[in-house]
Amino acid sequence: MKKNSRVILALDVQEEEKALSVSESTGDTVDAIKIGYPLVLACGLEIVSKISKLSEVICDFKVADIPNVNKLIVENAIRKGASGVICHGFVGRDSIEACVKAAGGKDVFVVVEMSHPGGVEFYQPTTEKFAKLAVEAGASGVIAPATRPERITYIRGLVGDLKILTPGVGAQGGNAQQAISAGADYVIVGRSIYQADDPRIVAEDIANEIKTIT
Amino acid sequence: MKKNSRVILALDVQEEEKALSVSESTGDTVDAIKIGYPLVLACGLEIVSKISKLSEVICDFKVADIPNVNKLIVENAIRKGASGVICHGFVGRDSIEACVKAAGGKDVFVVVEMSHPGGVEFYQPTTEKFAKLAVEAGASGVIAPATRPERITYIRGLVGDLKILTPGVGAQGGNAQQAISAGADYVIVGRSIYQADDPRIVAEDIANEIKTIT
Repeated sequence: MKKNSRVILALDVQEEEKALSVSESTGDTVDAIKIGYPLVLACGLEIVSKISKLSEVICDFKVADIPNVNKLIVENAIRKGASGVICHGFVGRDSIEACVKAAGGKDVFVVVEMSHPGGVEFYQPTTEKFAKLAVEAGASGVIAPATRPERITYIRGLVGDLKILTPGVGAQGGNAQQAISAGADYVIVGRSIYQADDPRIVAEDIANEIKTIT
Repeated sequence: MKKNSRVILALDVQEEEKALSVSESTGDTVDAIKIGYPLVLACGLEIVSKISKLSEVICDFKVADIPNVNKLIVENAIRKGASGVICHGFVGRDSIEACVKAAGGKDVFVVVEMSHPGGVEFYQPTTEKFAKLAVEAGASGVIAPATRPERITYIRGLVGDLKILTPGVGAQGGNAQQAISAGADYVIVGRSIYQADDPRIVAEDIANEIKTIT
């Protein structure tokens, strides 16, 4: 994944028309567009192919199954043109390794911490182990919440030069400059961009905001 | 979900034609057909509608995201005719509750233990907490591996009268009679059924095998 704007768009919409129009508007501004299952279930996996013509696509499928099912899910995503897939850490080493192998050189990002209230129950106490697993399994990077910059710094200390992608910037309260300063490589921004009248301008503004500190 | 054969088919195929022919063969023998993301990604979510005309459908999506995304995933599945959805315990109470609420009275089953080697790293040490969460969140049941009957008995002690569904019977080494005797309500069988020359006969054989002990 390129590292220009350091902004990844979380395209959390379910309508194909909206998804494509926002992708067209922002595709050459953001470094990647992250899509999830709600959009794919509503529009079909073909949406990955369509958006991948406009931007790199990260499939945020929170892949979390036994190794063989993980393999099949990742293969489907990569086959449609995804340049990265997000998987969960808690299903263990073999399941993560299956994702990395199936990705065949494309990026796999491992969730090591989650931002919602339930994320502190089981995820946060185990972040260190997930981070080490991500490194050992050959993942490209990890996912950690922008809403807790001190945790990004902590995770940076665990994952070395793996990429850190941080969701939660904008409407969820995370701050792009803080997240990058704390050690993130990319901020993931959703509503602030895709709900804007001109999504490209907001994406550019966030990219410029980041550039002032780097 | 009815409780006649106590057999659930894990339809782990990716070809629509095969999926529908096996569903036609077994739909009135098994109590439900469980489908996962590989089939849905390959064929589209419409496959849920098609199979739901032949059997109850459980969407084994291992739902594992923040509450609002979980809600959207479950709503998509239920809208297409699924009678149940499988979610992960690891993402915490609010994420499970979001699934139960979005299911609107349809079944939500919470994974409390997984059968693959990686499942003993983070899942198994936390099974008790996931089981309690499943009960408290109003789930219909839990998922626990048939390959470890002593764990089924342990989990039965934690979840009261919630349904216990146990994958891993057949090719993965689990035994239907053992799983039911240990406290499972349903066994989930994949390859032994869908790879058979006559899937219905194998499903009936397993159902009859279970009837001898109940």
